[in-house]
Amino acid sequence: MTAYENLARHFARIDSIHGAIEVLYWDLATQMPKGGAATRGDQLASLNVLEHDLMVDPRVADWLGEASQDKGLSDWEQANVREMTHRWRHATAVPGDLVEALSRAGSACETFWRTARHANDFAGLTPYFQQVIDLVRQKADAKAAALGVSRYDALLDQYEPGMSASRIDSLFADLADFLPGLIDRVLEKQAAGPAILPLEGTFPVDQQRALGLQVMEVMGFDFNHGRLDVSAHPFCGGTPLDVRLTTRYDEADFVKGLMGVIHETGHAMYERGRPLDWLGQPVGQARSMGLHESQSLLMEMQACRSREFLEFVAPRVRQVFGREGEAYGAENLYRIYTQVKRSLIRVDADEVTYPAHVILRYRLEQAFLAGELEVRDLPGAWSDGMQALVGIRPVDDRNGCMQDIHWMDGTLGYFPTYTLGAMTAAQLFDAATRADADILPGIARGDFKPLLAWLRPNVHGLGCRYSSEELITRATGRPLDAGVFKAHLQRRYLGA
Amino acid sequence: MTAYENLARHFARIDSIHGAIEVLYWDLATQMPKGGAATRGDQLASLNVLEHDLMVDPRVADWLGEASQDKGLSDWEQANVREMTHRWRHATAVPGDLVEALSRAGSACETFWRTARHANDFAGLTPYFQQVIDLVRQKADAKAAALGVSRYDALLDQYEPGMSASRIDSLFADLADFLPGLIDRVLEKQAAGPAILPLEGTFPVDQQRALGLQVMEVMGFDFNHGRLDVSAHPFCGGTPLDVRLTTRYDEADFVKGLMGVIHETGHAMYERGRPLDWLGQPVGQARSMGLHESQSLLMEMQACRSREFLEFVAPRVRQVFGREGEAYGAENLYRIYTQVKRSLIRVDADEVTYPAHVILRYRLEQAFLAGELEVRDLPGAWSDGMQALVGIRPVDDRNGCMQDIHWMDGTLGYFPTYTLGAMTAAQLFDAATRADADILPGIARGDFKPLLAWLRPNVHGLGCRYSSEELITRATGRPLDAGVFKAHLQRRYLGA
Repeated sequence: MTAYENLARHFARIDSIHGAIEVLYWDLATQMPKGGAATRGDQLASLNVLEHDLMVDPRVADWLGEASQDKGLSDWEQANVREMTHRWRHATAVPGDLVEALSRAGSACETFWRTARHANDFAGLTPYFQQVIDLVRQKADAKAAALGVSRYDALLDQYEPGMSASRIDSLFADLADFLPGLIDRVLEKQAAGPAILPLEGTFPVDQQRALGLQVMEVMGFDFNHGRLDVSAHPFCGGTPLDVRLTTRYDEADFVKGLMGVIHETGHAMYERGRPLDWLGQPVGQARSMGLHESQSLLMEMQACRSREFLEFVAPRVRQVFGREGEAYGAENLYRIYTQVKRSLIRVDADEVTYPAHVILRYRLEQAFLAGELEVRDLPGAWSDGMQALVGIRPVDDRNGCMQDIHWMDGTLGYFPTYTLGAMTAAQLFDAATRADADILPGIARGDFKPLLAWLRPNVHGLGCRYSSEELITRATGRPLDAGVFKAHLQRRYLGA
Repeated sequence: MTAYENLARHFARIDSIHGAIEVLYWDLATQMPKGGAATRGDQLASLNVLEHDLMVDPRVADWLGEASQDKGLSDWEQANVREMTHRWRHATAVPGDLVEALSRAGSACETFWRTARHANDFAGLTPYFQQVIDLVRQKADAKAAALGVSRYDALLDQYEPGMSASRIDSLFADLADFLPGLIDRVLEKQAAGPAILPLEGTFPVDQQRALGLQVMEVMGFDFNHGRLDVSAHPFCGGTPLDVRLTTRYDEADFVKGLMGVIHETGHAMYERGRPLDWLGQPVGQARSMGLHESQSLLMEMQACRSREFLEFVAPRVRQVFGREGEAYGAENLYRIYTQVKRSLIRVDADEVTYPAHVILRYRLEQAFLAGELEVRDLPGAWSDGMQALVGIRPVDDRNGCMQDIHWMDGTLGYFPTYTLGAMTAAQLFDAATRADADILPGIARGDFKPLLAWLRPNVHGLGCRYSSEELITRATGRPLDAGVFKAHLQRRYLGA
């Protein structure tokens, strides 16, 4: 066997183990009786260790060295070697004892946070969190040395390969200048416009589920290759041939749940569209977290908060829940789905204010890694940042700097991908609807085939063949910028 | 770390991977959309390879050598080393290429069989099956050489450690002499007795499920540590802290389904009762397939086909299905649950004829391994054996020698454990009810605590601390024999 063939076999095995971890995690979140938690923790830990052991197997370095010299490889195979190398570099950059120490500290911090958040106990959290930050800095140092980039870029590269803080700085600066003024104007306009009619009463779970399944089918989801279940925190997991989506239901409110299913279905369609010839290989994976989020937001924000989709779905909402009247008309649903509010909690934020929440976090992460911010100073920095970016100050830490799980287990460098995703979604959807004038009319009649027909070759089916930047440039004619996203927000929220 | 500590850690990891395989298999059987089959096959194959690789890791041999000399080990730890050695011997006895060849041939044969069985195509199956038998003989040779026992005993030892064909020969000879005459007399008696009143109409799945859950709860199953789902072939899987039971429902017949749930709950209670201090260690596992089957049959055949249990459950059956009348009385249910028939299909056989089906298969397996039987001669040998043991001749191979999946993928040496289980169940239940006179009255009032209070220390909680033979002797005062089982059949079916 050639070095490349050895690598392909080895990484296919790694992918199988990773797929097994996905199933175990899905089961934990949706099916497992509580008493199974300890055993499941052992199973997941063992498989994670095995996956890591395979990744750092000394033969991989030799194979990569040989394969990178192999002139006989196709473009896809070369891209596959590049992606393997990327994974291998990250896996080998950090010493095992540091990985373990961070895993322990992250686990302890996250566990403490789960109760401390409700108790608003930032003082209690501080030593746990400081330890996580200290270890994340060490990890970032190790990765920075191995990759030859800055601390922040080294962490960012795990989630958004090839992206840099300097590039994000310029993209986000553009948005940060733009958003506060936009938010003011949108709030003014919405206050002067017609009031939202409330959707009252109860929306039974089985009816919400039926509506969600209907919409997933309309969006082209194939239930022979996936399913929809319930979990406390919705996610999309599994493998391309067996995608596991979850959602949660609130019987007092179907609005969030429906858009949640659409969001996860956007992720799922990306997974389902990954290149079949490269399943199990690094080049066949989804490109990045930002691009993944672009696919969920393209469906949720671009396609399904459109008037076209809401015209389509309103009669189905009325039918499933047996309701009538103006409150359940497309116009009122559109108002609900585009309502803007200054709010303290990121996950409840609307399309317009969400990027401001993200930019705050991104700037604080950078400050942590640059050593310019320590944990004890976080509440003040958070409060000032919220005031500047969202125009509102948290009343306590529970609704401020303690709200997110990400940092608690050491995940820094991830937050910007949410807003990179939103910008990418806008730019891709704009290019798609320009390329095929039937996409929006299709959505209005519940036909997502034209949209998918554009997404498959331009995004989903490319896997990791190109970098994110190159993929976006090929698909839209230019590199990512904030322009289309800003224009989209102005058009939708100011009618300008 | 001592050699023993290294072994304990290593085998705990193996157990974790095995637990992950259990979850993946359960998911495949109960949740997975069909389109996920290929990916799941890869995941399971990868984890099986990893489990095997860990088992044959060269360090294990060294650790076992050292640990077997360690005078500081407790009785349980010594038993643990013995069980590790047993597993390691089996794993290392067969060369990798033979394992792989048998796995491929078994897979091909089983796949062909799935359609050939319905088509009654034994001629088509013959080459596939002959290849499996040839490879099983090679595997048995390899294991026989490594273990220093006969071909048959080497295979048997995988499922029933320490058991031998000569011991089974004498146990089964006793039964084979006894059964044909017993079957004749029981059939005569039942023909002369009152007719069974048919249970007509439809028994909706949700009502059957409700009844099953009720009975599981009565039997002491803890739903915080397990669940009940549906699969085509019922099984009990998972781990002691998260037991996954399955059943299947036929809306025209709740009788089989209810006893199916009870059978699997018997397996589950054994799993749940394994010694918590030794979870993840070989000594903490269930003792053998025969002992496992003894626990399902103890519940299904001994405890729950008793008049006591049927008196208890009859009102619940009437209530759940909203039925009335004599057909749903305990007496009629008892007649249904103890009806004996000569039938062609093992899995549909009753308590009396079942062992005859098993003895036939056991003798044919021995003949295969002794080289005294070739595949082409199987249909004739099967037909003659059925006539002699069950008193009925199959009309075709589909209802004869092609009915079971076991041999198709190379599982020989397993069949006798069904009847060892039935004999063991009778002997254990007899000892239990002698030791505690409240066990049967408990069952009559829906209280299984007295029965469990005997099973926990005498069977479940012992894991692999003792051999099967020793466990049975300690629990019942004498080694396994057919006597109690025969007496039970005579008492229940002849009232003698």
